[in-house]
Amino acid sequence: MNFEIRLARESECGLILNFIRELAEYERLSHEVVSTEKMIRENIFQKHFAEVVFAELDGRPVGFALFFHNFSTFVGRPGLYLEDLYVKPEYRGKGYGKRLLIYLAKLARDRGCGRFEWAVLNWNEKAILFYKSLGAKPMEEWKVYRLDGKELEKVALLAGASDDKQVM
Amino acid sequence: MNFEIRLARESECGLILNFIRELAEYERLSHEVVSTEKMIRENIFQKHFAEVVFAELDGRPVGFALFFHNFSTFVGRPGLYLEDLYVKPEYRGKGYGKRLLIYLAKLARDRGCGRFEWAVLNWNEKAILFYKSLGAKPMEEWKVYRLDGKELEKVALLAGASDDKQVM
Repeated sequence: MNFEIRLARESECGLILNFIRELAEYERLSHEVVSTEKMIRENIFQKHFAEVVFAELDGRPVGFALFFHNFSTFVGRPGLYLEDLYVKPEYRGKGYGKRLLIYLAKLARDRGCGRFEWAVLNWNEKAILFYKSLGAKPMEEWKVYRLDGKELEKVALLAGASDDKQVM
Repeated sequence: MNFEIRLARESECGLILNFIRELAEYERLSHEVVSTEKMIRENIFQKHFAEVVFAELDGRPVGFALFFHNFSTFVGRPGLYLEDLYVKPEYRGKGYGKRLLIYLAKLARDRGCGRFEWAVLNWNEKAILFYKSLGAKPMEEWKVYRLDGKELEKVALLAGASDDKQVM
């Protein structure tokens, strides 16, 4: 069996979308997926907001990871943020997820990143044990807040009366 | 009094570093700041890992925000992630922090972002009440894990025996 991790190609947006949908199903968040092949092509392969790698077994994709760079002001350097990591159910328990994480940890180090981070659902105990076994630490003190949809629009509209110079 | 929000310039790396240090002090995390002017110049103004805006009162900087783009696979679009938001203590309670948030919400919308996110320290009740008043929702189910320092190095070194193709 030949296991390999490689960068996704622009011709594989459909495959990426399939993986995103499978992952969403596993996370019980299918209702949140509005992504399309066109959006993936534009935002990943043309505007480079993220990068994707596939894990392949004898040339067949069995998992994927999507990541991008964040930035730590305290460290003064970029970090690597893993948005999605997924291995198909029938290929789990063979260390492929770990190989993907190791690959990205090396990539983070090779690119001079100070940190490698990701978020985990708090009910996913198996994943949490795995991450802790690698030496990852939970950011216990921090909570992420999100503005989206109508709330984001509402706050953005408050800028109407302001004369602050916008940058694009 | 003239209040204005504007992009930081490359000649202002020292000012950015001063703000980062003040914020770290407020967050009781001064020991974590290893950032230098050189790193800020390189990673923000040359490699564009993040962007910075200043809030100015009659031309005097009274606050700053540092942000970058993340990416949501479910939404298929980039988001705007606010890494740092800070207003000098003597200028608080006048709505300048809110003006910075509104400015960034508008920027997120204008750039086609699906989300505007940031993390808050769980003991910062004043900030949490403020964020909730704007309609922001805490990501209760999610916890961020971090690999850094020796642990990151250790995991990266596990790639040594692997023949996975690295991308740079």
